[in-house]
Amino acid sequence: MKRTKIIPLALVLILGCATIASAQKKESRSAATLRAADAQWQRAFSANDLKRSVDFCAADGSVMAPNAPIATGKPAITQLFSTFFSWPDFKISWNATDVEVARSGELGYTTGLYELSFKDPSGKVINDNGKYVTVWKKQADGSWKVLRDIFNSNLPMPPAP
Amino acid sequence: MKRTKIIPLALVLILGCATIASAQKKESRSAATLRAADAQWQRAFSANDLKRSVDFCAADGSVMAPNAPIATGKPAITQLFSTFFSWPDFKISWNATDVEVARSGELGYTTGLYELSFKDPSGKVINDNGKYVTVWKKQADGSWKVLRDIFNSNLPMPPAP
Repeated sequence: MKRTKIIPLALVLILGCATIASAQKKESRSAATLRAADAQWQRAFSANDLKRSVDFCAADGSVMAPNAPIATGKPAITQLFSTFFSWPDFKISWNATDVEVARSGELGYTTGLYELSFKDPSGKVINDNGKYVTVWKKQADGSWKVLRDIFNSNLPMPPAP
Repeated sequence: MKRTKIIPLALVLILGCATIASAQKKESRSAATLRAADAQWQRAFSANDLKRSVDFCAADGSVMAPNAPIATGKPAITQLFSTFFSWPDFKISWNATDVEVARSGELGYTTGLYELSFKDPSGKVINDNGKYVTVWKKQADGSWKVLRDIFNSNLPMPPAP
């Protein structure tokens, strides 16, 4: 009688641990997929590929650039990204330092550092660097799309004129 | 025989729908709790309450203010918030427009608009408004803490001097 109670308890513990291990494995696999999506978005941007850059955003996604209103939805995001890509010699790169996906697997974020440069109208190279947070949502087809993207500069505010 | 098969199937469907409805209810309850946390953090800030404002941040949380390096961990965040609270007549308010919590209930974000003002050294009132994204993590005690907070201005960049 004693043994029959111990065995089910042991089974519950083993199954419980297996479930936790499986959830952790699933989470890190999801995080790796999300990190890859962040890097692919970066490559689309580095290639100045407007269509691919916009396609990474969800239909109801928002990009929140500094010193500009929120761009929500693909037409507004297309207009915003077009402005970036129109800057002479525009270059951007970023790298996710942290990636986290919820246990349920459909919501996650990436965060890290960016560097960008472009030429101003006088031909002078403007350099900027800063940080970003991107909130991602997994879509019905399994792909990750940008729900919210926001960034700002690490450089000190230029002095008032 | 036919009826005994139909009844279990109906039960599965009813229980399935009940589970989905329960998950949706849980999600919106979680979102309401997170919205409340965002509003409470806002009130701590409005009250210039440094300790309470910092206490809303997770031990490994980061605040990403514009034109400043990332502040990670409570000592760095305390230093950053102290700077804000030291500005003469510093006032800030914000309002979450969107709140979402993952189905698993431990990760979520709030996003919305802020307004702030303070007096510069000459006594002139400086007004700013913009947007923010805050990523929150539910703690072991059930409270929501800030994992990442980032914001930037909607106002045009000041002209170069």
